[in-house]
Amino acid sequence: MPYERDNIAALAPYVPGEQPSWADTAHPVRPTLKLNTNENPYPPADPVLNTIRELPAEALRLYPPPRADAFRQAAAAVHDPTHSLTPDHILATNGGDELLRLLITTTCPPAGMRAGIGATSPTYSLYPVLAAIHPAPLTEIPRDSDTFAPPPAQALAHAWNDAGCSLAFFVNPHAPSGRLESLDYLRTLADQFEGLLVIDEAYVDFAPRHAIPLVQERRKNVVILRSLSKGYALAGLRFGYAIAHPDRITALDKARDSYNTDILSQVAATAALQHRDLAEQSWQAVISERTRLTDALTAAGWRTWPSHSNFILTQPPQPSPAKAKSIYEDLKANDILIRYFNTPGLADKLRISIGTPDQTTQLLTALNI
Amino acid sequence: MPYERDNIAALAPYVPGEQPSWADTAHPVRPTLKLNTNENPYPPADPVLNTIRELPAEALRLYPPPRADAFRQAAAAVHDPTHSLTPDHILATNGGDELLRLLITTTCPPAGMRAGIGATSPTYSLYPVLAAIHPAPLTEIPRDSDTFAPPPAQALAHAWNDAGCSLAFFVNPHAPSGRLESLDYLRTLADQFEGLLVIDEAYVDFAPRHAIPLVQERRKNVVILRSLSKGYALAGLRFGYAIAHPDRITALDKARDSYNTDILSQVAATAALQHRDLAEQSWQAVISERTRLTDALTAAGWRTWPSHSNFILTQPPQPSPAKAKSIYEDLKANDILIRYFNTPGLADKLRISIGTPDQTTQLLTALNI
Repeated sequence: MPYERDNIAALAPYVPGEQPSWADTAHPVRPTLKLNTNENPYPPADPVLNTIRELPAEALRLYPPPRADAFRQAAAAVHDPTHSLTPDHILATNGGDELLRLLITTTCPPAGMRAGIGATSPTYSLYPVLAAIHPAPLTEIPRDSDTFAPPPAQALAHAWNDAGCSLAFFVNPHAPSGRLESLDYLRTLADQFEGLLVIDEAYVDFAPRHAIPLVQERRKNVVILRSLSKGYALAGLRFGYAIAHPDRITALDKARDSYNTDILSQVAATAALQHRDLAEQSWQAVISERTRLTDALTAAGWRTWPSHSNFILTQPPQPSPAKAKSIYEDLKANDILIRYFNTPGLADKLRISIGTPDQTTQLLTALNI
Repeated sequence: MPYERDNIAALAPYVPGEQPSWADTAHPVRPTLKLNTNENPYPPADPVLNTIRELPAEALRLYPPPRADAFRQAAAAVHDPTHSLTPDHILATNGGDELLRLLITTTCPPAGMRAGIGATSPTYSLYPVLAAIHPAPLTEIPRDSDTFAPPPAQALAHAWNDAGCSLAFFVNPHAPSGRLESLDYLRTLADQFEGLLVIDEAYVDFAPRHAIPLVQERRKNVVILRSLSKGYALAGLRFGYAIAHPDRITALDKARDSYNTDILSQVAATAALQHRDLAEQSWQAVISERTRLTDALTAAGWRTWPSHSNFILTQPPQPSPAKAKSIYEDLKANDILIRYFNTPGLADKLRISIGTPDQTTQLLTALNI
């Protein structure tokens, strides 16, 4: 008897970006210039680090608050000074990835025929893997191959409806292009889509606007995903959260592991939101360096898409997959990691995370720009 | 259109034991005597705490090693000085709960008719909730209502086979009785059961033997679950692991969230196993106090089941559900928490976690013993 389901046996697992292992080498500062997985180039704020260092042993010995109550209070307060959001609008998760999985678990029927997942392509490469684990059919509607613009909101919503999607993931700012849609676009998408619309705002801290108003307007079919990995420089911590109507939070809450976030991540995440002003300084620095890198590449003849995120998508002159790949490999040989996607529409482009000014200089020098 | 699956909408969520919230009060040492959720009464070892306090900010900024490589090396080394286990036999998870969920995800077909989950009853109350989330049918074979002995191994395996179970959970030492089966019993169970046998050893650190030999014997249908919550006093950390044939680890690995354990828990869990001798001192203290509490209750006319865990199940004299419940409530009014299960076969009994000698004295005094 096989011990695994057929779909699991057949599954090609998610491949994360290369992660030179900090924990294996015990050398916290590695020589590699790591611009491949969109980490914040600046460290977490001091109050966050102090919270971790000062945590009493007693807090580790005991089970954590199952629902991360203190964090949920902090999140409601930081996002909504007018108090239309409450802790009941917030769900804390073990990274944004857990939230994506919970959304599929609670929404998509097992082996459902007309209950698939909608997305636009290209998109976050974890979505298809999570769909295949469940399993649920995935309907990817292509974005414009030149601009990465999605179809008009009504057309996209109807395409998902026609495919029988009960859930859709829309990453905004878009990965890997950095493109940002308007609030009106998202509002129409939510109004026209018959299922549950997930707006994945993993990168929104580097953008000029966000979609929380759609939840404040009491929409029941919108879930906003947030992550502390990028904006708060806490990728190592694994902490994300949902912002949604309390009915949606209640359903998601039923399916999470009973103590899904640990006490260290709860206190650190809470401190991070309470000291958001410190993180905002890093966002401004990243935005400013994003402009500098974009301008330098553009001046050298590289096509670079306007980004509202902490990375840029760029295409070297005389574009070809061979050229993009060789630039990626040459940089890697020089201990500079960027991201190369060997997939249709992206294979002649490169994704580069925004670093500090010194790191940008080091990268441009390596590229002879 | 409903946004949740019917089985989720109908689901009664798992109810954890009461957790007076450390994070909400910011008072790390609370006056409550907490003997209700089987935490270790002694703090984590100093090297574990130091690892957390000394973690560089850089490690938080970066994504963690996706597979917790350093931890898996430490676990293989600590469990198997003869080297028949390798890191490929180990999977690190966000608490043992994540492992239980992964086992169901990878093994039980969606909406499978003959692919349910086997267990014995009474058992860990999370199992039925996880089965209902998937959803998969759960077949609970009753233990002896007086002794909590399970049926003979061959009979139990055949009962699960006949019910079409592809997966079975067997907690050993048993919760909530503390009873421990022999290795021969478990070996027969594994040999006769046609599906995947999970031996949940969350409490095994307080027992005289464990089931790792079944994996060392190269059995392909055994997964051992371990947790750092009890033995290592790290319930707040959320860290568990599987020990199994590498084929099983590979399948489970496909379904876990892409970065399922954070860097703080990885380094702390690694240090905990590397300094297991320090944790063992707490296990000896708990075992010794378990004997003292059992003897004192027995002398006072309470029936107490022989326990190989860090809790005991006990029945007050002239047993009745009303009596057990009133003792639980009286203790709670005096800031002493123990566990009361309002379920068939358990409602006239109480489960008490083992504390320090002072805590045992405080409990016995409150009980007028």
